[in-house]
Amino acid sequence: MSSSGGRAPELRKDAVSNRWVVFSPARAKRPSDFKSKSPANPNPPQQKCPFCIGQEHECAPEIFRVPPDNPDWTIRVIQNLYPALSRSLHEPSASSLESAHTIGNCVLHGFGFHDVVIENPVHSVQLSDLSPEQIGQVLLAYKKRIEQLASHESIKYVQVFKNHGASAGASMSHSHSQMLALPVIPPTVSSRLANLKDYFEQTGKCCVCQIGSEDLVINSSANFISLVPYAATFPFEIWIVPRYHSAHFHEMDAEKAVDLGGLLKLMLMKMSIQLNNPPFNFMIHTGPLHGKGSETAYTHWFLQIVPQLTGIGGFELGTGCYINPVFPEDAATVLREVEIP
Amino acid sequence: MSSSGGRAPELRKDAVSNRWVVFSPARAKRPSDFKSKSPANPNPPQQKCPFCIGQEHECAPEIFRVPPDNPDWTIRVIQNLYPALSRSLHEPSASSLESAHTIGNCVLHGFGFHDVVIENPVHSVQLSDLSPEQIGQVLLAYKKRIEQLASHESIKYVQVFKNHGASAGASMSHSHSQMLALPVIPPTVSSRLANLKDYFEQTGKCCVCQIGSEDLVINSSANFISLVPYAATFPFEIWIVPRYHSAHFHEMDAEKAVDLGGLLKLMLMKMSIQLNNPPFNFMIHTGPLHGKGSETAYTHWFLQIVPQLTGIGGFELGTGCYINPVFPEDAATVLREVEIP
Ligand SMILES: Nc1ncnc2c1ncn2[C@@H]1O[C@H](COP(=O)(O)OP(=O)(O)O[C@H]2O[C@H](CO)[C@@H](O)[C@H](O)[C@H]2O)[C@@H](O)[C@H]1O
Ligand SMILES: Nc1ncnc2c1ncn2[C@@H]1O[C@H](COP(=O)(O)OP(=O)(O)O[C@H]2O[C@H](CO)[C@@H](O)[C@H](O)[C@H]2O)[C@@H](O)[C@H]1O
Repeated sequence: MSSSGGRAPELRKDAVSNRWVVFSPARAKRPSDFKSKSPANPNPPQQKCPFCIGQEHECAPEIFRVPPDNPDWTIRVIQNLYPALSRSLHEPSASSLESAHTIGNCVLHGFGFHDVVIENPVHSVQLSDLSPEQIGQVLLAYKKRIEQLASHESIKYVQVFKNHGASAGASMSHSHSQMLALPVIPPTVSSRLANLKDYFEQTGKCCVCQIGSEDLVINSSANFISLVPYAATFPFEIWIVPRYHSAHFHEMDAEKAVDLGGLLKLMLMKMSIQLNNPPFNFMIHTGPLHGKGSETAYTHWFLQIVPQLTGIGGFELGTGCYINPVFPEDAATVLREVEIP
Repeated sequence: MSSSGGRAPELRKDAVSNRWVVFSPARAKRPSDFKSKSPANPNPPQQKCPFCIGQEHECAPEIFRVPPDNPDWTIRVIQNLYPALSRSLHEPSASSLESAHTIGNCVLHGFGFHDVVIENPVHSVQLSDLSPEQIGQVLLAYKKRIEQLASHESIKYVQVFKNHGASAGASMSHSHSQMLALPVIPPTVSSRLANLKDYFEQTGKCCVCQIGSEDLVINSSANFISLVPYAATFPFEIWIVPRYHSAHFHEMDAEKAVDLGGLLKLMLMKMSIQLNNPPFNFMIHTGPLHGKGSETAYTHWFLQIVPQLTGIGGFELGTGCYINPVFPEDAATVLREVEIP
């Protein structure tokens, strides 16, 4: 690692995000010293909250549970009690969505779905404590809910995400994730698709299928590879990418879900050991629903994990460029070498 | 304000940012209760730091001071001791900048300038404590430094920004701002320009000249208007926009600088009173350097102020969409009515 201290800064961008990132060792503590100062609070084991088993009456309505109809549930998918979008508004018509593409100020009714996935019944158990099979079940719950949401013609995208720890935005400490189903394609998704399309048109290949040079790979499994992206926005950012071409997360079958569960568990454990249990977010980047068939040739879903180690400031807010003090090769080396006790 | 509690969520976008924002009162505390829980620490008056007068030897080299050659300076522009980009690398050639537009992974040497503007000599004095004339002098220091940086053909954009308070990213509490001069046009700037160009081509008008419907305006001065943007990304976000058409911040003259200083001071004071001295960032959004002449017809600089009241989470990281619990009309009403004691 010591090499990066004297390395000159670089600007990098990759073909997926197509966004300049400033790599700046002068702003770095050495990568191996780069520990979170505010570890996500370990959950007090005795605490009870609305997401705990037995407290179901304190929650917004349930959508489904795993296993079905079982008081001894392992996973619950429920409505968010303070939803950002409302499922009780009229679904926007095709024409109102059309008119949202006009120039100038636009407004749409806030129709959409905002759900919470309670990942396990016990307050003190974190996602990385679960077995690959159990994490696989959580991933399959996302899949099932996306399939339900896809039945709404007006839902264009489902963002699956997890906040872990207060400085990653979490307001509830009981292990959970969220799903927000939107009537529009969000900006990150449309610009990613445009970049992937450009790459495909120029090379005839899916850009994400090509990803993961040796120095950036952390670990791999039968169907997935984990790596630090070439132009990682954040220090120790990790992507888990399917090794098979697939546009949509919800195409994944049960066997692959367990495989992904294992690699996700490994990455969360490595991050926790190496970076002192940092707060983190993960996001599933998938294809839009009801997209053009031609999109599937160049769309390739992946999962992004971002430990929250550094804040941002006016530079990032102003430019959309990020300053990352840790070179991706160095982060990958560190994460590759972490030993799980 | 009570009205917004029962209001249905909306998705909005404006022509400048062209990015969907979710307005979601269900996630709001009522706007007048929406006070920062972590006010920016008032500076201990006795403290001394490298930015204080008399401590100049602890700083990286000075670029200029105001007044020039005066030990009793009021403003200093200095090099950043831990620069994100390096002024001592070779300037990238036109051809290396060209090749940075190719598809796939790209890398550029991290050439650029990273400066700090010390806004006043005294540790305990904040920007909003200065007079309109004094703030005008700070703005003119930005202008002078941008003009110097513009002499480098390879510098494409200068981002001026201020971090105030730890949760807005500040690592130094002595009142200061920063300037980062980049060899590339950052993503926020290129997408803003593309949006403004579209608007201009469809309407024949500058979109920013049209901005500021009555319900969104906070205050105005001879040459500037302050408002909450129609699709504000953050609660109580404020834009200060020149009422005259101008592509570049650094075209501003001394008289207008004092006028802007007064309106900026008023906004910072109102924010501090209404929102309990929140941490904040401000960013100057201006035109690229050495741009095409045709760009100036639709490029219009402005200053954006963002109080840091809410965090973000996986949804925002994943989608680039933001959830704002406060409707812009409500924020504007509150800020319009704040009385300065
Ligand atoms: N009894 C109950 N029944 C059902 N649902 C309940 C409930 N009690 C609480 N909830 C919901 O549970 C969710 C818990 O979510 P998180 O802790 O991941 O973060 P939150 O959504 O609060 O905000 C973070 O994530 C969002 C999205 O990224 C950011 O906008 C925000 O700034 C950040 O703090 C909340 O959305 C809450 O509304
Ligand atoms: N003696 C000295 N002489 C000269 N310069 C000195 C100095 N001592 C310190 N400095 C510099 O002064 C600057 C002070 O800047 P701020 O407090 O606004 O935030 P900082 O840049 O640390 O990071 C915030 O802003 C950046 C950019 O938005 C984000 O990347 C980051 O996450 C956020 O914390 C630092 O950049 C530091 O390098």
